[in-house]
Amino acid sequence: MMREKLETLGEFGLIRRIQQQVGTAEHLLRGIGDDCAIQRQSEELELLTSTDLLIEGIHFDRRWTDLEQLGRKAVAVNVSDVAAMGGIPQSLFLGLACAVDMSGEELQVFTAGVIAETEKYDVTLAGGDTCRSPGPLMISVTIQGVAPAGQAICRQGACVGDAIYVSGTLGDSALALQLLQQGEPVSEFLALRHHLPSARVAFGRQLAERQLATAMLDVSDGLLADLAHLLEAEQLGAEITLGCLPLSEEFRRACAEQPQLLELAMTGGEDYELLFTSSQQNLIENLHFDLPVTKIGNIVAESGIRVLREDQTQYHCERGGFDHFS
Amino acid sequence: MMREKLETLGEFGLIRRIQQQVGTAEHLLRGIGDDCAIQRQSEELELLTSTDLLIEGIHFDRRWTDLEQLGRKAVAVNVSDVAAMGGIPQSLFLGLACAVDMSGEELQVFTAGVIAETEKYDVTLAGGDTCRSPGPLMISVTIQGVAPAGQAICRQGACVGDAIYVSGTLGDSALALQLLQQGEPVSEFLALRHHLPSARVAFGRQLAERQLATAMLDVSDGLLADLAHLLEAEQLGAEITLGCLPLSEEFRRACAEQPQLLELAMTGGEDYELLFTSSQQNLIENLHFDLPVTKIGNIVAESGIRVLREDQTQYHCERGGFDHFS
Repeated sequence: MMREKLETLGEFGLIRRIQQQVGTAEHLLRGIGDDCAIQRQSEELELLTSTDLLIEGIHFDRRWTDLEQLGRKAVAVNVSDVAAMGGIPQSLFLGLACAVDMSGEELQVFTAGVIAETEKYDVTLAGGDTCRSPGPLMISVTIQGVAPAGQAICRQGACVGDAIYVSGTLGDSALALQLLQQGEPVSEFLALRHHLPSARVAFGRQLAERQLATAMLDVSDGLLADLAHLLEAEQLGAEITLGCLPLSEEFRRACAEQPQLLELAMTGGEDYELLFTSSQQNLIENLHFDLPVTKIGNIVAESGIRVLREDQTQYHCERGGFDHFS
Repeated sequence: MMREKLETLGEFGLIRRIQQQVGTAEHLLRGIGDDCAIQRQSEELELLTSTDLLIEGIHFDRRWTDLEQLGRKAVAVNVSDVAAMGGIPQSLFLGLACAVDMSGEELQVFTAGVIAETEKYDVTLAGGDTCRSPGPLMISVTIQGVAPAGQAICRQGACVGDAIYVSGTLGDSALALQLLQQGEPVSEFLALRHHLPSARVAFGRQLAERQLATAMLDVSDGLLADLAHLLEAEQLGAEITLGCLPLSEEFRRACAEQPQLLELAMTGGEDYELLFTSSQQNLIENLHFDLPVTKIGNIVAESGIRVLREDQTQYHCERGGFDHFS
């Protein structure tokens, strides 16, 4: 029998296989495949839960990562999964396999970052597990949150004609990472966008309370890859207007010098902005939000994602999204 | 400044430090330091949550571990944390950082073990995260369960005069591990006790429903180490009768040949039996349970654990319990 390589199966191939084998339960309203699992908690509330892994050498590099910021980021990316459902984060569980070369002080710096970030989001560190690792530092974080029954926004739900929106700006984190990997200087703004992403909890709550979004997730694998997750759920397509992608000043400046960097806004991961679809364009455009919200395209019936230039010709990306196995 | 070594700080030192820095929340009834965190879920129910890490080279060795059994064990040890509170396990979240040399087939064998074991305990695999590991296989498991409000049994609660009980037999898992590490043959009984521990869910529920236990945990670090966790919570002591420790036939046979192996019943980890204290000896001795339940000693006011021989002289253990950092 041929050995199937992990790279061939892929992260999403593995998840799909597991999904097909797993049973259901009455209390489990949504299981594998969304940002959080949704479980019935009481008449009024639903419980949201999500687990994330952060592995040294895969998700971060200690050579250019401050341990306090790493602790903060581990919390923020996990809280972002609750934000992506429009929920209220509550409790965090931390698993920590410490690399052999880490000292007690380094661990304290890391956990201080974890605790500070939980406080920022009004989340309590409620439990965890710690041990040594024979190799890399490994962090597992599990977040629990709640949402009033029926309010949680899933990946599934987009309809033809819905507008596609994204919060904040795209590509900053990936640009910072590329500069760091190349040993080039990184501005403080870009470095923070990479090392200290913000979970958009308040914004997610606004969308959920007012039922403004038909589908939502956070941009962790890259805009196109994450948009594909939304479309896959409904077998729909999307048209994105290249000129509408929200870009920071710093990102625009870098693109002016190296135009191919623009791809990072579409394929670069770890923006942790909220990507959502809505049938209520008028409402969204007239509401005040604490962060920029930009319409970047529309949901269409024909499957696939088309990125269009101003002259309506199609733009083709060289890179795909982020697959944690490739 | 001196670099503090992780070994000096120790697993429990680190946990205590984190515990001191963490805030509380109204919905969180118990946080760090018990088998599970307890949160208020509704008027009737409390939510129990626990995270465990299983790291290759620390917790298991792929050279003598079948991947299907490893998947099963990852679930069972995590479910055991809910059993140790007398709760009903419900949902499991799996984090999986796959070693570079693992194939797609090997992953499927592992996840088949995970899924089979969740089904055994009527638990649903509700979510997770997967990625590559640059080094060892790393597994994180998070279990959620429930208990009727007020029924969960904590580590805290033992009183002077309480009898100390343990389910099943002690030391089998540690004996199997020692034989495996020495490359010696292992009987199927012992191998299963090590590779396929049973979470004592039904027994834990019986104790919780009838409010028979004042304090409880599962034996994962070794009897003496885990008993110390119970005593620490109340600053009490314990007297254990050496001759009362429940030992399997196979374990007794090994001790007959090598008497020093007896220590494994006190210091060997991973038995996953339930260790509890009770003030209701009459009730416990007259009830029928589906597994052996043995009184091994009493809680006393004077701190420390004394293990007594038949002639009332004190037995001293050479080894300590299991610390994941040492």
